[in-house]
Amino acid sequence: MGSAAQASARCAGGEDDARARAGLSASVDAGHAALGTLVGEHGAPAVWAALRGGRLPRMLAGIGARGGGDAADRWAAAARSAEPDRIIAGAAEAGARLVVPGDPEWPGRLDQLGPRRPVALWIRGSADLRHAALRSVAVVGARAATRYGERVAGSVGCALAEAAWTVVSGGAHGIDTAAHRGALAGGGPTIAVLACGADRIHPRGNADLFAAVTGNGALVCEHAPGAAPTRHGFLVRNRLIAALTPGTVVVEAGLRSGALNTARHAHELHRTLMAVPGPVSSALSAGCHRLLRDWQAVCVTGAADIAEQLGAIGPELATGGTVLARDALGADARRILDAVPRSGAGPAAIAAAAGADLSAALRHLGLLTAGGFLERTPSGWRPRPGSGR
Amino acid sequence: MGSAAQASARCAGGEDDARARAGLSASVDAGHAALGTLVGEHGAPAVWAALRGGRLPRMLAGIGARGGGDAADRWAAAARSAEPDRIIAGAAEAGARLVVPGDPEWPGRLDQLGPRRPVALWIRGSADLRHAALRSVAVVGARAATRYGERVAGSVGCALAEAAWTVVSGGAHGIDTAAHRGALAGGGPTIAVLACGADRIHPRGNADLFAAVTGNGALVCEHAPGAAPTRHGFLVRNRLIAALTPGTVVVEAGLRSGALNTARHAHELHRTLMAVPGPVSSALSAGCHRLLRDWQAVCVTGAADIAEQLGAIGPELATGGTVLARDALGADARRILDAVPRSGAGPAAIAAAAGADLSAALRHLGLLTAGGFLERTPSGWRPRPGSGR
Repeated sequence: MGSAAQASARCAGGEDDARARAGLSASVDAGHAALGTLVGEHGAPAVWAALRGGRLPRMLAGIGARGGGDAADRWAAAARSAEPDRIIAGAAEAGARLVVPGDPEWPGRLDQLGPRRPVALWIRGSADLRHAALRSVAVVGARAATRYGERVAGSVGCALAEAAWTVVSGGAHGIDTAAHRGALAGGGPTIAVLACGADRIHPRGNADLFAAVTGNGALVCEHAPGAAPTRHGFLVRNRLIAALTPGTVVVEAGLRSGALNTARHAHELHRTLMAVPGPVSSALSAGCHRLLRDWQAVCVTGAADIAEQLGAIGPELATGGTVLARDALGADARRILDAVPRSGAGPAAIAAAAGADLSAALRHLGLLTAGGFLERTPSGWRPRPGSGR
Repeated sequence: MGSAAQASARCAGGEDDARARAGLSASVDAGHAALGTLVGEHGAPAVWAALRGGRLPRMLAGIGARGGGDAADRWAAAARSAEPDRIIAGAAEAGARLVVPGDPEWPGRLDQLGPRRPVALWIRGSADLRHAALRSVAVVGARAATRYGERVAGSVGCALAEAAWTVVSGGAHGIDTAAHRGALAGGGPTIAVLACGADRIHPRGNADLFAAVTGNGALVCEHAPGAAPTRHGFLVRNRLIAALTPGTVVVEAGLRSGALNTARHAHELHRTLMAVPGPVSSALSAGCHRLLRDWQAVCVTGAADIAEQLGAIGPELATGGTVLARDALGADARRILDAVPRSGAGPAAIAAAAGADLSAALRHLGLLTAGGFLERTPSGWRPRPGSGR
């Protein structure tokens, strides 16, 4: 679904809202609660106009937030050179689309962040984020992972993908990369939530990984394209990973690993928090063991454990239901779903029966599988028992 | 403390009771709840007389227990050839003493087993079992342990001993042996609870370990000397390991390991149950991970974690109190304690000041340390802060 499709779903006021959010996402600090409160109370266009007009400090003071700080000055300076239409067009050239609350692709779980909900998301890749995130799990861990940790993350990512779970991670070296690669190897879509613009490759060495993710999944960022990675960016990014998913698995983490920050967000958001144990002699497992010792995380040793834990909070999935009503599917997805025979079929046959091209069919098949409508078999796709087809 | 000393503490009726219990421990199945109920109701001498006189089946039927089974016949046959005085004398020759409920050395925690409390214990070794068990922890695990597990058990055993905890285990190959050896290396007493008579060496290869344990600790068994190890013996032995200690640590266990049986007993007895994590790829850690996943055990990675967990249920120990009142100490122990100067001293100086021989002084110093009265320093022993000395 491209920007054009998102835009076509918006009314005229929605377009103003989207443009204001594009401008805000290029100007303000991500995850700023006071700003989020203002957007909730006055709407994005009014806040964007206030920022441009130098009236944001007064607006912030009106809700009791520190109004005249450096941040507001910095934001105003950024806003003066931020031109929403130009940002949106530049993003589209780089293959990134703007998604804002109310758009069909907006993941409902993010609303649980309250005033710290992102003002907008920029997405690059074939997956529909809302649909892919419905049945998803975050797999995170240290950049300086051990071979043990990378092996576990890779095999867990692969097995989760094979069981139709979307793997969400942060696109970093180490555990993140292993989890994404495992998911792609398992044939599933995978979501990388980045701390810098969705058009940037950071870390550089992951260019091929990011290309694969855009082909079967998505790169997601709340900063506008072009944004450089910052320490603050990584920390607020972690809350998105936790919020997008019903559960987070920490595979390896030292006692000061950023993965424990993601874990804390998951805990605070009442998500299921899981940790993979390792040798007690490994400093890279010490963070996981502390989560287990303090009863914050449940011990998981593989994809089956993880699915069982998440099944416990979403029994409709574990027992074969779907993540959303059939009526909520888009017209294209419904046509593909209707073209899948009970006995199962390969993607080319399904594409032909639905009158779709192969790549579109493959994308919808992946999403329908993630949503619990279909299941993959060695010979192709077939309706999932209990999915109502 | 030898059999003579235990016996001297018993009144005449107590001697009848001890003899009856010696006979019962040589005849009946250990841990038999119905038999334990009868002993509690009628006293050991009456039950022993009933067994010898063929009246036990009727007595069992009187409390609703199956009275005429094979077990009672087997027990009666064994009782006919069991001569308590001869058993006690033979045990003494083998260095084993009889300890029964009411004796000063009887560990009070065993009373929490209710009708499954052992009718008697046979003990071989220098340690006073009651005193050594007060501040103790069970460290158990698989016989077919990995090098990882043995290394962890050894270092945990050593660090616990250095922190004045008595390590209790089962004397088997693998984790048990590593834990005992670690404790001995740490200079602490260690208790091996055996499934066969305390005079037998099983497994054979552990002869040198058992000799070391009798030198600084004790071999303990509820079966009379001469008893061969049986499957039933191992299972009921496990309940004693769990019952003797305030907490049990499972270092390594496959999904069908006997160590999980010990863990179950610890759980049922409301002891603190702990498990050491390991690589998820290791089948020998799978039992530990299942205990963690099911919230039955708390995750511990070393002696500090273990002490913290046990401190939480016995704050008087963690904060420097003692496990029993000073008045409850024997005269010899009190003389040694009084001879320890505030500034600390080596064992020879303490022995000389107390007018005791060096080996007796060393034994009491170890017990007083385990009891929280003293602490070891690089230069010897000194009163423990907060111990009231």
